Amino acid sequence: MRKLFVFLFVAIAAQTLFAEKVATWIYYPGDFEIWLSNNVQNRRTARGAFFPPFWKVDSHYVLVEFSKKLDLAAPETVSLKVEGRYNVKLDGNMLFGFPDKVTIPAGKHSLNIKVFNQATVPSIYVNGPTIKSDGSWKVTYEDKEWIDESGKASDTSSGTLYLDAASWNFNSPDATPSTYKLATKPQPAVSHKQVGKGVLYDFGKETFGYPKFNGLKGKGTLSVYYGESPEEALSVDSCETLDHFTIDQPSAKDYTVDLSKAFRYVYVEKDNALSYDSLSMQYEYLPLEYKGTFRCNDPLINKMWDVGTYTLHLTTREFFIDGIKRDRWLWSGDAYQSYLMNYYSFFDPDAVSRTIFALRGKDPVTSHVNTIMDYTFYWFMSIYDYYQYTGNKKIIEQLYPRMKSLMDFCLSRRDADGMMEGKAGDWVFIDWADFKMSKAGQVSFEQLLFCRSLETMALCSNLLNNRQDADSYTKLATDLKAKLLPAFWSDKAGAFVHNRENGQQSAQVTPFTNMFAVLFGYLDKSKTEAVKQNVLLNPHALKITTPYMRFYELEALCALGEQKHVLKEMRDYWGGMIKLGATTFWEKYNPERTNQTAMYGRPFGNSFCHAWGASPIYLLGKYYLGVKPTSPGYKTYDIEPSLGDLQWMEGDVPTPNGKVHLYFNTKEIRVKADEGVGTLRFSSKSKPSCKEGPIVAKGGNKYELEIQAGKEYSVKYK
Amino acid sequence: MRKLFVFLFVAIAAQTLFAEKVATWIYYPGDFEIWLSNNVQNRRTARGAFFPPFWKVDSHYVLVEFSKKLDLAAPETVSLKVEGRYNVKLDGNMLFGFPDKVTIPAGKHSLNIKVFNQATVPSIYVNGPTIKSDGSWKVTYEDKEWIDESGKASDTSSGTLYLDAASWNFNSPDATPSTYKLATKPQPAVSHKQVGKGVLYDFGKETFGYPKFNGLKGKGTLSVYYGESPEEALSVDSCETLDHFTIDQPSAKDYTVDLSKAFRYVYVEKDNALSYDSLSMQYEYLPLEYKGTFRCNDPLINKMWDVGTYTLHLTTREFFIDGIKRDRWLWSGDAYQSYLMNYYSFFDPDAVSRTIFALRGKDPVTSHVNTIMDYTFYWFMSIYDYYQYTGNKKIIEQLYPRMKSLMDFCLSRRDADGMMEGKAGDWVFIDWADFKMSKAGQVSFEQLLFCRSLETMALCSNLLNNRQDADSYTKLATDLKAKLLPAFWSDKAGAFVHNRENGQQSAQVTPFTNMFAVLFGYLDKSKTEAVKQNVLLNPHALKITTPYMRFYELEALCALGEQKHVLKEMRDYWGGMIKLGATTFWEKYNPERTNQTAMYGRPFGNSFCHAWGASPIYLLGKYYLGVKPTSPGYKTYDIEPSLGDLQWMEGDVPTPNGKVHLYFNTKEIRVKADEGVGTLRFSSKSKPSCKEGPIVAKGGNKYELEIQAGKEYSVKYK
Repeated sequence: MRKLFVFLFVAIAAQTLFAEKVATWIYYPGDFEIWLSNNVQNRRTARGAFFPPFWKVDSHYVLVEFSKKLDLAAPETVSLKVEGRYNVKLDGNMLFGFPDKVTIPAGKHSLNIKVFNQATVPSIYVNGPTIKSDGSWKVTYEDKEWIDESGKASDTSSGTLYLDAASWNFNSPDATPSTYKLATKPQPAVSHKQVGKGVLYDFGKETFGYPKFNGLKGKGTLSVYYGESPEEALSVDSCETLDHFTIDQPSAKDYTVDLSKAFRYVYVEKDNALSYDSLSMQYEYLPLEYKGTFRCNDPLINKMWDVGTYTLHLTTREFFIDGIKRDRWLWSGDAYQSYLMNYYSFFDPDAVSRTIFALRGKDPVTSHVNTIMDYTFYWFMSIYDYYQYTGNKKIIEQLYPRMKSLMDFCLSRRDADGMMEGKAGDWVFIDWADFKMSKAGQVSFEQLLFCRSLETMALCSNLLNNRQDADSYTKLATDLKAKLLPAFWSDKAGAFVHNRENGQQSAQVTPFTNMFAVLFGYLDKSKTEAVKQNVLLNPHALKITTPYMRFYELEALCALGEQKHVLKEMRDYWGGMIKLGATTFWEKYNPERTNQTAMYGRPFGNSFCHAWGASPIYLLGKYYLGVKPTSPGYKTYDIEPSLGDLQWMEGDVPTPNGKVHLYFNTKEIRVKADEGVGTLRFSSKSKPSCKEGPIVAKGGNKYELEIQAGKEYSVKYK
Repeated sequence: MRKLFVFLFVAIAAQTLFAEKVATWIYYPGDFEIWLSNNVQNRRTARGAFFPPFWKVDSHYVLVEFSKKLDLAAPETVSLKVEGRYNVKLDGNMLFGFPDKVTIPAGKHSLNIKVFNQATVPSIYVNGPTIKSDGSWKVTYEDKEWIDESGKASDTSSGTLYLDAASWNFNSPDATPSTYKLATKPQPAVSHKQVGKGVLYDFGKETFGYPKFNGLKGKGTLSVYYGESPEEALSVDSCETLDHFTIDQPSAKDYTVDLSKAFRYVYVEKDNALSYDSLSMQYEYLPLEYKGTFRCNDPLINKMWDVGTYTLHLTTREFFIDGIKRDRWLWSGDAYQSYLMNYYSFFDPDAVSRTIFALRGKDPVTSHVNTIMDYTFYWFMSIYDYYQYTGNKKIIEQLYPRMKSLMDFCLSRRDADGMMEGKAGDWVFIDWADFKMSKAGQVSFEQLLFCRSLETMALCSNLLNNRQDADSYTKLATDLKAKLLPAFWSDKAGAFVHNRENGQQSAQVTPFTNMFAVLFGYLDKSKTEAVKQNVLLNPHALKITTPYMRFYELEALCALGEQKHVLKEMRDYWGGMIKLGATTFWEKYNPERTNQTAMYGRPFGNSFCHAWGASPIYLLGKYYLGVKPTSPGYKTYDIEPSLGDLQWMEGDVPTPNGKVHLYFNTKEIRVKADEGVGTLRFSSKSKPSCKEGPIVAKGGNKYELEIQAGKEYSVKYK
């Protein structure tokens, strides 16, 4: 035990030391993300036309000051790289020109670097024996340091808002933020065949990247049609993405398309005067470690895990995007699910925080996130989740002012009942449902998410020791919560109704509010049971036909212990897509339809690689392996495994600095975790046994075992 | 008379027709100005170091949609140029790629162009037989046009904020906003002489531009020191601006410095291995018409007019900047005076509106304009002036939301008395005074300007028929105005005191509040007289030593009829600078000092070409020629000429579409105006005569004559 602590201490100390010792490119929090997301979101095309977002996109601060108070034992010379026009001030004195080296004498000094950059993000890289640009530097977009007539500089200590500088992994002077690119690697086509006037290529599975014509030669037009299905690629008039290139290359040269595309199939037509040797691609991807794993006795479920993680990998890029064919945008509601899936697969907190910062953008708030009311609320909810899964509070500190201003926007739009209704320009989305539902008046689903967002604000204010805000948000949340049942619960339906107009409840019961109420724990036992029977397990209830809302529907059922039922649903629904040949999961799948490609009024509008399709990852990790944090960063966590109808399962759930490994069959549980203190909860008909730790009986057939880090536990049970 | 009306009507109709017929580059209101001001303000250098502003600088909207509803008699093809990545939508359908021509069928259609541009301003130029990009197009930074699952686009008619597109004079497809540059022309040095190791060049007068070394050859360092005085240029250790160039040109080539500088003198030192034929410059300037003129019998006053207009021309550039040596920034208080001087000289409304837009930037408001409380108030005041002088209401329509948010910022920072005190990060500037004055507590000067700003908001709300706002701002202004005398008037001093702390009036009387109270007409007759005697004409009152505040001090005296006294002050003060060799007027001039170059703790800190130095232009135009609008855009105006101690004077005061010409001596007045209806007010000991119109006696020796446009009036008087 002592040894372990010493080891942990050394490991943590080394990490801290290491973190302090590495110079990295730094910038204003959120600015790199905003700038990068502008580039990402403004490269969507639709049948050759540029297709930008319809919401406000913001800019980085174009003028930023970086500063650091120094106390040096010995003089030192630092090297300096800057993206932008800049000056360097040592103890208030500006140095000549644009120095790439600065020598600082021993003792106490202040170093200030101010950078202007309109096109890309003002950022600096400072590297000396002890001085390194990192998160200990301060940044501001208005230093307010003026000089009076006598030459005296103003005091900026109280009137200037400084934040800690932000960084990612740009740890070498040449890895400038503005040149950031995803990784690529070559990938061949798996097969091709002549079809009509052209050739149809198959890359074997859904993929993303830059098609490459090897040895292209001659003069003429090269037309390239992309498809997630062969039908789409061959439909030159209706495929969603395409390119026409005018080529004039007298001698053979490789030709790589400059804007990446999503496809499995590529159909190429060309003028006769053109020729090329072969078509391959540069596969483009975010390098990710597959930390989460899952295997069980059912090959279909295993396949689901693999297709899910591949779907999530393809959509986890500079940011979490919705789908790779279109829109390739950041959508808060879609991203919220990606975050949760990410915690059970790649556990890449940076991808989450990048997306959260980019989605929020800058003040002023002029509309909801993505213009969608529900998406604003998912944004709030995502921040506390991030803290819970990673233990990193920094994001709350950095974003808190922007959380407040977004919540102010919401609060300013409440109706007389303190509820939020869709105003002009607001999109009340909820889901792409196949049934009609009203978006008018007080939509119960929106109030539920609004309430959860207020609770999130209260939690975050508390974390920052902002008592005044915490009290205010707690009161707002409590008041709203108290209104939910009176306003929307129907005893007749035994469920929440969909909405209320002019104080009148509608008769429609949709699944959305009901399943979220279960997830949020907003219902007592009898109402929870009512929702379960009247909505969730009711075969006559309105059917969800997007993986998006099936995510929460099945999660709610899992939370109610219906893992067996959910497995069956998964096999039907995600298994259904797999049976139709899916290599990645889809934006929409309605088993009752014959045409799966059409959507948005277009024959190939449906996206066949959509992040929100990948929810089995999350369900299997959180509700079958059953691992979830109970305090921030997995300091404590629960393991509550459930086989459903499986014989055995085995997997890893990633944690900030390691993983929880679990093997589970009908007789044995094996657990090993790298960090934190876990509580294994399980049922056993007879008294279970474990050599590595004391099992505590919790009454009935329930048992618990505390899991210490670094130790393997084996439990026999029945 | 009838002929004239017909002529005017045709002229106006032709102009309107013409305005509709010209295609011009268009963009989001204020965005070009913000982008350009970022470039302008981020090229200041101080002894070779880049010296950016210390306030927040904003960005243009990087994604903008332009739209136009069309109704065509015949089909037409338009050509299209765009700065940025863009798409074109005709009736909701996106066209392939980046078309440079679009054909629109006859009938009703909607044309939408959406542009992304991070580095420069999204802007478009559309030109067809009848379709032209101009101010009739709509722009928005968030169109909120989403597409539902069926492919139906959302209704953007009520939830999207559209403004009329903005433009300047980029009327040809190749005159892109992003390539905008001031004009240049070559200018030689007037003389040069060897001094020490180098050569000192004299360009004859203060100037601005790019030094050019003709026939530069060899290898080595070229050091260039700039001076507004020979002492400054020769002070290689203390001159404010300098360049060191490393040259390696084996054969002789002209070498032009790439960052423009202000100077009259240039001192050059070079390595022996370098040689050049001569030093000249590319003078850089905004092409301006000298519409306002002034001549009189006193050559010193004439010189003052010429030096003043040249000073103003040098500082009227992309924007009105403070001074050309430093800071070359946009300062709201400085610019406010430039606007007023501009109305009496170049009458360039575009330069005014460019500066007003750039100073305001974007929301959110995080500090006062330039961080200075008084400068926020001047910004408000400038907008109504602009309307009054130009008759153009557009600026109020476009800026009103930003006026409101800036005023909200002010209102949120009031103290318990409803007054504004300097908070952390606020700069309470007032003036660079040579006496000590407190900036603490309730500074009377700030409350006076705050009150005037509230009155401006009320006026503007009224103009936009926003009754609710007008009522609210009127009440705020009335309430604050009622507090001014009780809080700050001292019967003992017979004047306003400087400030109040904890409810206690200070004993100090400074000129600022008192002179502004006169200008704003906030005082009754007896208090006005008290201020005149106790402050303005009191030789023991605290002395103003900047042309900045002398502007208002002398204006107040003129408003009180002290033109004779003011002429004497002008001869002493501005004449004093001229006697010291000034070719442009200065930032600061204290006749009692021997060293005029030092300021800000630096030997050459004082700026010798500072816009606020040029106030004689304004005083001579407004209070000697005596011309000022009494309704917006000179629809009606006053001419109240005053000779002071002059024998005669003659001049032009520009109006939006012409000028008012006046000749005035002790016996005769001649007036001709191009537009509007003027009222000539004058005094005469005997009955005056005029053949061209009826003179109306107003009692005592006061007379009035109505001046119709296009007619020359000659009045004999005594």
